[in-house]
This record gives sequence, structure tokens and C-alpha cells, in this order.
Amino acid sequence: MQHIAMLVYPGFTALDLIGPQTAFGFLEDVQIHLVWKTLDPVTTDMGITLHPTATFETCPEELAVLFVPGGVAGTIALMRDAAVLDFLAARAERASYVTSVCTGSLVLGAAGLLRGYSATTHWAMREVLPLLGAERVDARYVEDRNRITGGGVTSGIDFGLRIVAKMQGEETAQRAQLVMEYDPDPPFQAGSPESAPAAIVEKLRGMIAPDVADARLAAEQAQARW
Amino acid sequence: MQHIAMLVYPGFTALDLIGPQTAFGFLEDVQIHLVWKTLDPVTTDMGITLHPTATFETCPEELAVLFVPGGVAGTIALMRDAAVLDFLAARAERASYVTSVCTGSLVLGAAGLLRGYSATTHWAMREVLPLLGAERVDARYVEDRNRITGGGVTSGIDFGLRIVAKMQGEETAQRAQLVMEYDPDPPFQAGSPESAPAAIVEKLRGMIAPDVADARLAAEQAQARW
Repeated sequence: MQHIAMLVYPGFTALDLIGPQTAFGFLEDVQIHLVWKTLDPVTTDMGITLHPTATFETCPEELAVLFVPGGVAGTIALMRDAAVLDFLAARAERASYVTSVCTGSLVLGAAGLLRGYSATTHWAMREVLPLLGAERVDARYVEDRNRITGGGVTSGIDFGLRIVAKMQGEETAQRAQLVMEYDPDPPFQAGSPESAPAAIVEKLRGMIAPDVADARLAAEQAQARW
Repeated sequence: MQHIAMLVYPGFTALDLIGPQTAFGFLEDVQIHLVWKTLDPVTTDMGITLHPTATFETCPEELAVLFVPGGVAGTIALMRDAAVLDFLAARAERASYVTSVCTGSLVLGAAGLLRGYSATTHWAMREVLPLLGAERVDARYVEDRNRITGGGVTSGIDFGLRIVAKMQGEETAQRAQLVMEYDPDPPFQAGSPESAPAAIVEKLRGMIAPDVADARLAAEQAQARW
């Protein structure tokens, strides 16, 4: 039996986690743990309240995958949370893959786990990566040795299927993709800052600017821990 | 304030719901309710335990969207659950859109809500639709008057963004798509029975055959209610 630990926390983005968690469900002999400080219910940024299944103490020490989802305000709080950063650093030492989707990579980075690695994050937060010692790559999926990071939110589906293929082969991943009917047909050309209408990109950049500034500050503060 | 009711139930597929729920989160002046018989936690088919936010009694009567996610065994149980079918039929009478993703359409169908409508469902369950009085359409997204049905699991993202566009315009939907970074890059050509390797399609059809047979039986039983 292998173990996958997926961090959950107040304000995380449900879809960041549910995409890969669904793909991981097709792995054989794998147990998935939703890990937080306590077993008390946690509420996502969009109001879903769900239950962790393990704590930092009960989470297995040997992990096939350590995973961190994103979520703007929640992510930034975690970048300043010593208990979280210590837990991630400890489990990452022995994990086969140290991974994230969306702004989850900023939490890995704050824990010092992306120093010297190429990595990605949500498109609006990419500028924070270099402050965490990572080489910023503007891509939906970045793999550098055993650090695997995905871009924003829905990239977790592509990410999850790729991890499944790495762990148990392409046929298992293809079976997962077919059951998940992942034959996407986006209604608009708006899924990346390059393809979306410029006015919408600008508007969102303006809305998220205070969070980017705060994440930059949190990244600088995190450096003191390394 | 408009209201969206998303059914949750034991064994539903989290991603069926979280995809559209994330898109709906970008709507303004909308409250999303996760509805079940009680407020007791509900566990999905992949082991996520989450909390309903409303019951059949407390769910608003006037809905902008009534939504049912899929989930194989859980879906079939609902097709035989009079309390669920009565709730859906009652709310559908006044809902602006009566909708589903994946096998959720079979529950709508069992409630008599797809008689005379074109509809889709998860690719492996399409043959059940005609038994529910629906016109089967082999597509990822089907809109017929105010009945809107999506295909399997991940189709909920395409579906959710389209509903957002219908409700509050393309710019809102494009903003949601950009924040969700929905610029998909599936790792394999395996997301539909037409594109996936034939051996994998056959294997899955074999695995799900008992469920398809049971869903057909449930559909025939449901006809007695109409």
C-alpha cells in the first residue's frame, strides 16, 4: 500500500484538489489522505465544508505523493504558518513526488522546497516564484526531478492524470481519463492570459494585485526560515 | 439574490459538482446551496466527506438553477428514491434551468423531467436515456429549452462556464475561465469512447455492464411513477 497526502486548509480551492484526487482514485493499492492540523472540518474558498482524514501527526511518514492545493488568501496564510511549513519540509524529505497545483507551489516554496527547482503556479502569481528560489516557468505543468507543479485550478486534472501515468502506467491514466470523460471543450478562448481578452486580464490583475503584493512579502519573510 | 440548488448525496462524484460549483462562484448576487435530505455529512464515491448546507425543506422554492451531479451506484439508488424524485419534480416546476452533469441526468429522468427533451449523460450510460423518455444525444453538452445536461464528470467545467454565460454574460464566464486557468492540455487522446484505445473502452464497458443493467431496470421502475 502506497500513501498520498493531500493538504487541505481553510480557504483552499476545492477544484485544485478534487481534479487530481479524482485521477488518483484510479490508482491501485493507494490510500489518499486529506491532511490538516486537526480533523475538524475545513471550509474552502467557495464555501464547501469537508473533513480531513488525517492530521500532521497521523499522516504516514513515507509518501508516494505529497500534494498542496492553492487558494489565494488561504495560501498566503500558510506561507507564514511554521507548523505547516515544518510538516511539508519533513514529509518532503522522504516523498517520491513533492507536488502542487495553483498557488500551492508558493507554500512548497515557502517551506524551502523549490530552491533550485523549476516550477509553475497560477498565472497571476508567477512573479512570486523567484522570491522563493525557484526558476519560474510559465507553463501548465512543470516537472523537475521529483518536484511537479501545476498551473491554476483546472490544471490539476492534466497534472493528476500525468502523475497516475508516472506511477502506474499510461493505460491506467487513459482509463481514468476515459471514465472522467476528459475530452474538454472550453466555451471561450479565455483560459490563459495569452488567449483571454486583454481587458479581462488587466481587470483581474488589478483585482489580485494586493494579494500578489502580500504573497511577495510572505515569500521574503519565508526566506528567513531557510 | 438568486438561488442555485446543487444536490449532494451518498456516493456522488465530487468533480461532477465541484467543476460547475467553481464556475458558479463567479456569479454575482447568487447563493449556492448544497442540498440533501438532512444536514448530516455525505461521503462521495472517492471518499470526500462534506456538509450539505440545506435540506429538501429549507432549500428555496424559487431556483435559478437546479443541478444534479452523477455517481454510479449513488445515482441508481436515487433513481429509486421517492423523496428525492418528488423534491426534484417540485423544484423543477419553478426553476429557470433544470440541469445535470454525468449520470445526474438519469435521476432527472427518473423524476420524469426529461420526457420529450434531448439530453446527454456519461458516455457509458447513454443507452439508459431513451428508457426515461429522453432523446439521447451523444454530446458533451446538450441544451433543450430549460433542460441542460452535461456528459461525464469533467464536462461539468464546460457546462458550468456555459451556464454562467447564459445567466450573467460572456464576460463573467470568461473571467471565471481565466481565473480557473481552463486552458486544458489532456495528456492522452483518451477522453471519449471515440478517441480512447478500443481495448480500454471495451474493458470499461465490461466493468460497468452490471451497473448499466441495474440503471435500465431502475429506469423501467421509475416509469411507473409518471
